[in-house]
Amino acid sequence: MRSKGFEGMACSIAAVMGAIGDRWGMLIMRDLLLGIRRYDDLRQSSGVTNATLSDRLKLLEENGLVERRRYQTRPERFEYQPTGRGRDLGLLMQAMVQIGDQWNLSNLEGPPLDFIDRRTGQGVKLITVNRETSGPVERDHLGVRPGRGADALMTWRLSRGSERPESSAVRSGQSQGADYPAVRDDHSSARSP
Amino acid sequence: MRSKGFEGMACSIAAVMGAIGDRWGMLIMRDLLLGIRRYDDLRQSSGVTNATLSDRLKLLEENGLVERRRYQTRPERFEYQPTGRGRDLGLLMQAMVQIGDQWNLSNLEGPPLDFIDRRTGQGVKLITVNRETSGPVERDHLGVRPGRGADALMTWRLSRGSERPESSAVRSGQSQGADYPAVRDDHSSARSP
Repeated sequence: MRSKGFEGMACSIAAVMGAIGDRWGMLIMRDLLLGIRRYDDLRQSSGVTNATLSDRLKLLEENGLVERRRYQTRPERFEYQPTGRGRDLGLLMQAMVQIGDQWNLSNLEGPPLDFIDRRTGQGVKLITVNRETSGPVERDHLGVRPGRGADALMTWRLSRGSERPESSAVRSGQSQGADYPAVRDDHSSARSP
Repeated sequence: MRSKGFEGMACSIAAVMGAIGDRWGMLIMRDLLLGIRRYDDLRQSSGVTNATLSDRLKLLEENGLVERRRYQTRPERFEYQPTGRGRDLGLLMQAMVQIGDQWNLSNLEGPPLDFIDRRTGQGVKLITVNRETSGPVERDHLGVRPGRGADALMTWRLSRGSERPESSAVRSGQSQGADYPAVRDDHSSARSP
């Protein structure tokens, strides 16, 4: 049932990464989301070679994330812009910026890029909320459950991940459980009367 | 100043992607965050070859995202678990799941994996809020600004991205501006009295 490639996996994480291709693809998407449109500017901003840039732009176009538009005839010139699907990757970009800033991997004086509310100039961040009530949900309360599109492998993965091995590391308290513990998919308990 | 590699870039997106390595690295982090600890289970879950799995686990360990612990002597056996930094990638995983579900790339009946509030079993999602007031910020109001750690390239990137080319595509309305328009870093306007 499952192919070895990313395409056949019943996993949204694999699907998104498969569409972006690699980290160069993500850097190009970053630049497009920031409004860079011209080939030469993309090259300057990302520092990639011509071969890599052409190849990844083509891949991103094939995967429906980028659109190429002619903006000039005689000579023909093109610009690149994100499609609706490509714009959805803004969430990924925000998440990466938030994590990278937490890590401060580059040992910089501060964050290289701030996401803000343009109306007030104040900083923004991503938080997790309840889909229905919009109330914030703390990290410690998060869990996972196989969704309607889960295949046998996803179900196995989640059940395996929520078992705790009987090991000395666990007994000595060195080992921790799943970061997102799996919850049994028991719809009966969630059903309204 | 800037190296060609990801390591030297003043960009949190590049830093996070550099630490994960590639999409196989991300799939392994997914499995660790879901609580999978054993080498054989990681192999089964991700479908990677032994060579790739060993290599990526080593890389993730070197980058401070994964910790290897011996849980048995005679014979020695190890388990893998995410570090604090590795656990920060949960936000990335949530973002990818949210985007992949929106795309429904795999043409599944529904999402393969649901993030939930374990207390209520209800679904959760990521939203953007104001850092100070915690009030929700709509996508259309988001913008970017060079942060304190921005280098000349980041500043150039943002200014270039917020210029609109004088092209027929723009005049005909086919072209769109930056998804996250850059705002001038004018601290004076934000200063308190």
